[in-house]
Amino acid sequence: MSTALDTPATRVLQMLAAAEGPLSGEAAAERLKLSRTAVWKQIEVLRGSGYTIVAHGRNGYRLIAVPNAAVPTEVLPRLRTRTFGHAYHYLASTPSTNAVLSRLAARGAPEGTVVVAERQEAGRGRMSRGWFSPPDTGLYFSLLLRPTVEVARVTSLPLVVGLAVADALAPHLPAGEPRVKWPNDIWIGDRKACGILCELQAEIDGVQHVVVGIGINVNIEARALPVELRSIATSLKMAAGVTVQRAELLAALLDHLERGYAAWQRQGLAPFLERYRDRDALFGRSITVERAAGALSGTADGVHPDGSLRLRLPDGRIESIYSGDAHIAAFNAPAPG
Amino acid sequence: MSTALDTPATRVLQMLAAAEGPLSGEAAAERLKLSRTAVWKQIEVLRGSGYTIVAHGRNGYRLIAVPNAAVPTEVLPRLRTRTFGHAYHYLASTPSTNAVLSRLAARGAPEGTVVVAERQEAGRGRMSRGWFSPPDTGLYFSLLLRPTVEVARVTSLPLVVGLAVADALAPHLPAGEPRVKWPNDIWIGDRKACGILCELQAEIDGVQHVVVGIGINVNIEARALPVELRSIATSLKMAAGVTVQRAELLAALLDHLERGYAAWQRQGLAPFLERYRDRDALFGRSITVERAAGALSGTADGVHPDGSLRLRLPDGRIESIYSGDAHIAAFNAPAPG
Repeated sequence: MSTALDTPATRVLQMLAAAEGPLSGEAAAERLKLSRTAVWKQIEVLRGSGYTIVAHGRNGYRLIAVPNAAVPTEVLPRLRTRTFGHAYHYLASTPSTNAVLSRLAARGAPEGTVVVAERQEAGRGRMSRGWFSPPDTGLYFSLLLRPTVEVARVTSLPLVVGLAVADALAPHLPAGEPRVKWPNDIWIGDRKACGILCELQAEIDGVQHVVVGIGINVNIEARALPVELRSIATSLKMAAGVTVQRAELLAALLDHLERGYAAWQRQGLAPFLERYRDRDALFGRSITVERAAGALSGTADGVHPDGSLRLRLPDGRIESIYSGDAHIAAFNAPAPG
Repeated sequence: MSTALDTPATRVLQMLAAAEGPLSGEAAAERLKLSRTAVWKQIEVLRGSGYTIVAHGRNGYRLIAVPNAAVPTEVLPRLRTRTFGHAYHYLASTPSTNAVLSRLAARGAPEGTVVVAERQEAGRGRMSRGWFSPPDTGLYFSLLLRPTVEVARVTSLPLVVGLAVADALAPHLPAGEPRVKWPNDIWIGDRKACGILCELQAEIDGVQHVVVGIGINVNIEARALPVELRSIATSLKMAAGVTVQRAELLAALLDHLERGYAAWQRQGLAPFLERYRDRDALFGRSITVERAAGALSGTADGVHPDGSLRLRLPDGRIESIYSGDAHIAAFNAPAPG
């Protein structure tokens, strides 16, 4: 775990990366005002994080390879945020990053705290469903928000999170992708690449905190997906053919999330509605929404400013959907417009 | 702790209470199909709960006094509810009944589960404030709800809880008392007798649970109140001069809460608005509302169906207040109507 942008491991790494030839442990110790043993310990920390560092002569080190992972030493130097990610907890494995962050939140963790796990043993999806979280290829993290808005206004937050995630993924994808699927999935084509789970803790007249859990399929390949997911799931790499640097992606995500969140706190969903429509995976399509109260079919017609889905029923009326699963009908009319 | 309406202790107690003279341990054992040792153990359990039971001759028992407390043996036989209180956890002491019930909720406790504590070491009020919880004279309990409504609708729940509590307290008080003070206090005259703290856990598109914490000053006397509370707090006994049976009061509270909650789940706050106005401690009074966004003064004008307070500003406009503390101005105009 790490909770500061500037750690001894980060500083040793910067020297290793900047060194023209091998880095002398003695020179590093002197420059960083550490003992030579302390430098050696940081080298071991870095090796444990996945860096390939070879010994070179007597007491020299050479950086050979950098892990493609959201380790603190890769993420923290890339952060462009004011607060998001500055408190940064990286775990090799955890049952659920949302569960870990909920506990930190109860103990007073600040807004913007991030928990990242390389692997989740019991990743949670919406409505207590599981979330497949294979190691080494995904990005699984949770972000703590403490919005100063009334409870009723929080319902539009997942859509703002979805747009921020979509904006961060877009540079790695073909034009027009990804799209947001109400209420909180990210699709590439008609396949899911990312799920978002927002959990709210509130006194009824005021939000205590929201834990935003985000799981993204980054570099997983089709053959590594469970058979039952192959027709419905995808990843950035499957869609674009390129391996994405996960630390850089996380830094970009936190940047987009921080800016989207700030705008939402000031003005709610309204300023996002136009962009939402541009990215809306459901707009104009025939869908069926499964709700606790029963299924309802119609044509998706965007979202209301409170985040609810506008469903145009066959008789022309608009129904506002606050909760449910939307499925696109098997044979769709082409989307208008 | 007890989680069933019918326990061995309850059955032994019923026999003790029904016995004309002393109860023979042998007869009780035979009737209850227990060993004589088991009967003796239940007698000890009852003594530990505050019952005065004296030995009478060889192996006979006589019930002398019943505790005025929300012990399971007093509460469970009085329940008239369908589910509320049927899962019943009684604790001599706990930091916070809401905290205990939140943990039970996370482990799947059913709707209607109740946690009662004779004493709270760190009772929580709204907005992380403390709540003074002296032992033996109050009623401190938490109730688990799992409403199937969208998050935005939950904002009106505290008002329904407040009305149910007021209805349960009313038979012990002078006509017209108590009154509800937005958002979640109960007043007798202009003094607080009860506080309500509703804590919400939700996925943003669906409520997971609400923990309703209720703290009532029942039998405390003025001299037992901390000096700083004497001008602002009161109790049923201080207001009416009569000691109230706490187990009977809790059974009545759960009955009112269950019925109010069922009506609210079906129809929201609308059917309660008229009764709310009858009991509204603020209606027509000059108040100042302290909010995170700053203080606002005006005349209280009831509540909206979403539970927000209607504040009539000096220029006649109505402002909806979702969160804040309302204080009555020191020199009030008489309430109209």
